[in-house]
Amino acid sequence: MPDSPLADRRNLAFLLHEVLRVETLLALPRFAGHSREAFDAAIDLAHELAITHFLPHNRASDAREPHVGPDGRVVIIPEVKAALDAYSAAGFMATVADEALGGMQLPMTIATACDGLFMAANIATSGYALLARGAADLIRAHGTPEQQARYMRPILDGRYLGTMCLSEPQAGSSLADITTVAEPHADGTYRLRGAKMWISGGDHELAENIIHMVLAKIPGGPPGVKGISLFVVPRYLVNPDGTRGARNDIALAGVNHKLGQRGIVNTFLKLGEEDRCVGELVGAPHQGLACMFHMMNAARIGVGVGAVMLGSAGYLHSLGYAKERRQGRPVGHKDPSAPPVPIIEHADVRRMLIQQKAWVEGGLALVLYAGMLVDRGEQELLDLLTPIVKAWTAEWMVKANDLAIQVLGGYGYTREYPVEQYWRDNRLNPIHEGTNGIQALDLLGRKLMARGGGALAKLAGEMQASIAAAAEHDATRPLGAALGRSLAQAGEVVSAVGAVLARGEAQRALAHAHHAITAFGHLVVAWLWLDQARAAARALSAGRISDEDTAFYTGKLLAARWFFDHELPLADHAARVLKQMDPILLELRGEHL
Amino acid sequence: MPDSPLADRRNLAFLLHEVLRVETLLALPRFAGHSREAFDAAIDLAHELAITHFLPHNRASDAREPHVGPDGRVVIIPEVKAALDAYSAAGFMATVADEALGGMQLPMTIATACDGLFMAANIATSGYALLARGAADLIRAHGTPEQQARYMRPILDGRYLGTMCLSEPQAGSSLADITTVAEPHADGTYRLRGAKMWISGGDHELAENIIHMVLAKIPGGPPGVKGISLFVVPRYLVNPDGTRGARNDIALAGVNHKLGQRGIVNTFLKLGEEDRCVGELVGAPHQGLACMFHMMNAARIGVGVGAVMLGSAGYLHSLGYAKERRQGRPVGHKDPSAPPVPIIEHADVRRMLIQQKAWVEGGLALVLYAGMLVDRGEQELLDLLTPIVKAWTAEWMVKANDLAIQVLGGYGYTREYPVEQYWRDNRLNPIHEGTNGIQALDLLGRKLMARGGGALAKLAGEMQASIAAAAEHDATRPLGAALGRSLAQAGEVVSAVGAVLARGEAQRALAHAHHAITAFGHLVVAWLWLDQARAAARALSAGRISDEDTAFYTGKLLAARWFFDHELPLADHAARVLKQMDPILLELRGEHL
Repeated sequence: MPDSPLADRRNLAFLLHEVLRVETLLALPRFAGHSREAFDAAIDLAHELAITHFLPHNRASDAREPHVGPDGRVVIIPEVKAALDAYSAAGFMATVADEALGGMQLPMTIATACDGLFMAANIATSGYALLARGAADLIRAHGTPEQQARYMRPILDGRYLGTMCLSEPQAGSSLADITTVAEPHADGTYRLRGAKMWISGGDHELAENIIHMVLAKIPGGPPGVKGISLFVVPRYLVNPDGTRGARNDIALAGVNHKLGQRGIVNTFLKLGEEDRCVGELVGAPHQGLACMFHMMNAARIGVGVGAVMLGSAGYLHSLGYAKERRQGRPVGHKDPSAPPVPIIEHADVRRMLIQQKAWVEGGLALVLYAGMLVDRGEQELLDLLTPIVKAWTAEWMVKANDLAIQVLGGYGYTREYPVEQYWRDNRLNPIHEGTNGIQALDLLGRKLMARGGGALAKLAGEMQASIAAAAEHDATRPLGAALGRSLAQAGEVVSAVGAVLARGEAQRALAHAHHAITAFGHLVVAWLWLDQARAAARALSAGRISDEDTAFYTGKLLAARWFFDHELPLADHAARVLKQMDPILLELRGEHL
Repeated sequence: MPDSPLADRRNLAFLLHEVLRVETLLALPRFAGHSREAFDAAIDLAHELAITHFLPHNRASDAREPHVGPDGRVVIIPEVKAALDAYSAAGFMATVADEALGGMQLPMTIATACDGLFMAANIATSGYALLARGAADLIRAHGTPEQQARYMRPILDGRYLGTMCLSEPQAGSSLADITTVAEPHADGTYRLRGAKMWISGGDHELAENIIHMVLAKIPGGPPGVKGISLFVVPRYLVNPDGTRGARNDIALAGVNHKLGQRGIVNTFLKLGEEDRCVGELVGAPHQGLACMFHMMNAARIGVGVGAVMLGSAGYLHSLGYAKERRQGRPVGHKDPSAPPVPIIEHADVRRMLIQQKAWVEGGLALVLYAGMLVDRGEQELLDLLTPIVKAWTAEWMVKANDLAIQVLGGYGYTREYPVEQYWRDNRLNPIHEGTNGIQALDLLGRKLMARGGGALAKLAGEMQASIAAAAEHDATRPLGAALGRSLAQAGEVVSAVGAVLARGEAQRALAHAHHAITAFGHLVVAWLWLDQARAAARALSAGRISDEDTAFYTGKLLAARWFFDHELPLADHAARVLKQMDPILLELRGEHL
């Protein structure tokens, strides 16, 4: 069987340069010191490290998952620490950090491309790094200069790792119900007491220290989410000179045994069992959830990147397999003495491949576009797209991995091939960082309704520009027209749901919110496919290109057509369900089930 | 967390007695000696054994999967043999076998209900028994009296187990390409030489002997599937007096490490490495594939039963969880000091539950109906429905299990809860016993086209009768009308595809065949939901029923409505795609991907 490439670099370059025109970011002061060559060099370096340090232990860290040793410490196969050390040494803990802090100061778009390569190679090991980077960025945004020096710098330098501690055993989706408390202490710090669940990277010996970003409630604050504050709780206290101090009172109470993403230890932590768990408040009291959303929103984009790259890894593996594996003859060619053909000759196998391509390459365009929005500071569009980036990719990439298994048949169902692991690993994505159900409510009930649908209007403006430009090419004109129809339908959804919300009937308006992920996610991805098709049509019409490029661009046009003809109807179906607001789910009671 | 029931016996009784009227089978001479009480007693016994002997080791045989010990023998946790021994002792190896052979002579419908309970408890351990029963039935149908005495009787008696050996490493979907050969020997037996892949239960010490049903080619026969013959190849030769003889030359070459269904050993076998692998021809030479289809079709129905029961187990577990687990408050009720509600109070959780219910209970009706067709000898309808029973359930029950995980959230993603295992176990079903792609081609290209669409016409007649009867109740009339529209659309698909097939354009006609599983499967399941709704409306209108029954029947009406309003549109979409015959998959070449 062929060695699959980790990622399709030709496609990545196409998206970055021909579709998203990442070079336009060089005009921004923050990125003026870079160049296309610098961007490519960062991606090349990430690609090389991903292959040499992350990929080789992807199966091993799944098969021999972290466990608690006899001394109570978490045991993790040594390849993980080696990979993270190489990653830090190459500067990737600080890809987007300021140059003044020793960072690469790369655009988020390029950082996303780099991250994606590590994630395609090993989603679990990448997780340690991405959580730490998120913690550092949260302290950068909301911490004091002292906190930045004490906790953020060592992360950027690769000495510390970090986590986000939100969920508790009784409160995951409903953070209003967390019960971890933080009592003020005379020295200005706090003493925390409580339990935190599902904490990835919560305890290990991979780094000198672990910086936990913890949500807790200061007694006397308002109930619910308005009484949540944010704390930094280091595993080891840090001495004034920056050296490691005493062990803080945050202890491993158990590890969870997951279906996938097993290589990253997932922990149950207890804080303050000895009443000496020291935390420092980050930001203002009771403003913790808003602060934490800085990290959480980045994590949601990160979920999307990981989901897409697992989808991509499965697609590329199944594509390579389908070109090599020989079996059967195409429908209608039944001479049994003819030699078997590569299974890519079977239409149903091509169906499973182009379906994956349409989802995966559309999804990659989506997450890179989200990076562009970060880099251009387009907060309103980014806020609108965040639940789509998280939930659309999570939902559809699991399906992509399902098809990769199916292409491989029985072999795909064995642990001798990587696709079953991609499928298991990817299945976490609809659950963590806010379930897909929560994302759908956020999208339909909040983001789309905010300021009279202002964000959607802005997005619609971008889409209309693409539709107008699509009229230039015969290949893209009908796609543009179809996008226009779906866009109009999406507007009708927002009006219809908004009217029922305005009448105070939130339950009815939002009962089928789940469909918003497809209704709007497919719409956005169709738009990004239109832009890909436009770039491909432009390149093809320019002429004088190699056979390889002709095949590449023709493939883009075919995949765009596939998305419009075979996927976009699902968005229209979802939109109809959303407009309809069938009351059946309100009639349905527990005793009927 | 609640202990979930293994199966919903109330629903099973409803389907058997109120919808399918299984008692009508008592009028057939073969089942005249039975009674409703005898049927119920068999199901009760299966339920009890499933709980006491199959359920307790379901997780253990996944976590500690079979492996090859230092002596080269397959090591399986002892609970598996204990369960199979209890199963045999209770007579379940012979549920449908003639009373004259010591069998229970139960209808297949009742046997399906019994099998389903074992499969819900432990799909892997059940597999050993079901394969053995399939082998026994194949010998019954095509073997000589001597073969029946030598190989079938000991299986029915619980002394032997059995397998089906079709696939080879290079030939799974394409049996035309098998290369195992069977040379005639002077004593009338054959000597086999070759390799067989993916053989479940292919080597172990669970029984005195293993009876392999093997496809191989006799030299000089026609090429392709027309040159395939069927052989019985015992692991140990059997002496004329029925005692165990010498070890036959069929050897374990390796075990496969699967994603799920790990408890049943899956093997790679080599035959004739010492040129002394003895096989006996079953049936006529070169007629082996037709004979094997007797076992394969039964296995395909069995796949459907297993898929549905894993779907059911996941549904029931997530339902119990949703009623107990408290978190958050319903949309619009945002007082954070109010106590958290059971998550079933959230509309999106109810959506995931009724969606599972609609698929699972529709699927259970489908597999039980297939049993009725066997019992009534309605071969034409059974042939039509077999690919649907296999592939529709395989496709949609994986999705049901996916929702069960989602209801449990993070907990569902851990191995501390059973739903992730159901999902992994169920993922085999779209692959084995003919992939879903193969089933779709069989359905659209063969079964629906056979004899001018005669089978579909027959099925349509049954549906029209239901539609007419549905007009009696307000609750069912609109469902009947909707079914009529979908049925008409299905007829158009058959005409349109048939016309293109008749023009010799098989590739174009069948390129999107995959959609036939949903186009026709959803149609059939909608029909069976209509019949469930009719039975429920009848019971409700009869009045004087308990609150519990009122809730049960109301739930049936709601689930039927859900299926018609939220699922049947997917069949209509699939039908449109099938009629359209978009040539894109024929334009698409490997270099475009």
